[in-house]
Amino acid sequence: MRIVIPIFDGITALDAIGPYEVLSRLPGATVIFAGHAQGPVHTDNGMLKLLADVPFEQAGDLDALIVPGGFGTRALLSDERMLSWLRKAHEQARWTTSVCTGSLLLAAAGILTGKEATTHWLEMETLAKLGARPVPRRVVEAGDGIVTAAGVSAGIDMALTLADAIAGPEVAQAIQLAIEYDPQPPFEAGSPRTAPTPIVERVRRAAARRS
Amino acid sequence: MRIVIPIFDGITALDAIGPYEVLSRLPGATVIFAGHAQGPVHTDNGMLKLLADVPFEQAGDLDALIVPGGFGTRALLSDERMLSWLRKAHEQARWTTSVCTGSLLLAAAGILTGKEATTHWLEMETLAKLGARPVPRRVVEAGDGIVTAAGVSAGIDMALTLADAIAGPEVAQAIQLAIEYDPQPPFEAGSPRTAPTPIVERVRRAAARRS
Repeated sequence: MRIVIPIFDGITALDAIGPYEVLSRLPGATVIFAGHAQGPVHTDNGMLKLLADVPFEQAGDLDALIVPGGFGTRALLSDERMLSWLRKAHEQARWTTSVCTGSLLLAAAGILTGKEATTHWLEMETLAKLGARPVPRRVVEAGDGIVTAAGVSAGIDMALTLADAIAGPEVAQAIQLAIEYDPQPPFEAGSPRTAPTPIVERVRRAAARRS
Repeated sequence: MRIVIPIFDGITALDAIGPYEVLSRLPGATVIFAGHAQGPVHTDNGMLKLLADVPFEQAGDLDALIVPGGFGTRALLSDERMLSWLRKAHEQARWTTSVCTGSLLLAAAGILTGKEATTHWLEMETLAKLGARPVPRRVVEAGDGIVTAAGVSAGIDMALTLADAIAGPEVAQAIQLAIEYDPQPPFEAGSPRTAPTPIVERVRRAAARRS
């Protein structure tokens, strides 16, 4: 089971590391981090560097593609090198998945045209403009092995769903227990449907300032 | 607000990246990744490399220390260089925190002696042997700014608790919403108290084989 995760400057680290932490624990799994070049990529805030093992085109055969998001995706929506590689990877992979604004890259590559998909709650309109049919769920299965997840932390739930589909519920539950994923958030503010309105507006304004 | 996260070979990536993703979003926060040397560290499964910015001793002043875990902690329980640095960092920091088996390092450094603390559910006895008083909760606040979290994914809940204590509930909720932390695990198997017994035994056996 070869799992390839493309990483890039401006990535949101948890988008990639959540699914990595789950899926690397599948029996026989190998996770490869691919980048525009071998070497470090800087996360969205510049405070962390992850190392890409290989350039995209040398990532080799793959069973699953996991596309993370982050502000860095904006510059990549017209990066024909990356979009072309995503199309080829999707054709080969049994599973094509994304976390957060990673789905914008899949959509820009034409992979989500007319399909149900999700993304970070702030970017649902962008996803629609790129041809997908946004659905406000945490994990959206569109058929043909295409699975998209909502913002950042949703990649953990998506990966457990995928672990179940790939290796069955016992393996998925064992992974959940191994990473002690028994979430107890101190607030009920993780979705625009549950967060207090002033908090939603605050996050919306902060994102607008960054755009 | 300077937040220092020590990283090391054999680290569990999500232990570090969960809190990083939350706390890097605090207003004015800087996160520094420190290692035995500047350069790459390999995660527990060898599939990912994170870059350390500086050696421990050059991490500089800090307000918060976050110690992640992973199988790599075992070799570090007698690493006097690291334990000595942890003691100094703890003396200076307002907050001394850990995720998963990171608490074993804090305990080995003498920081948790006689104090309530938690760790990965498989390592509670080890934590007791190192002088702490294990408490089976997801996030344990021992006073004096010492906060420990249970296994791997618990670092996200711990960091949101910390964000609340540092910057108040509005900021913490805004961060929770920004990372869309509205967890919906597909199974109720994230704790030995909720997982089916055969799953608990399976994970226990797998860990014993690795020891």
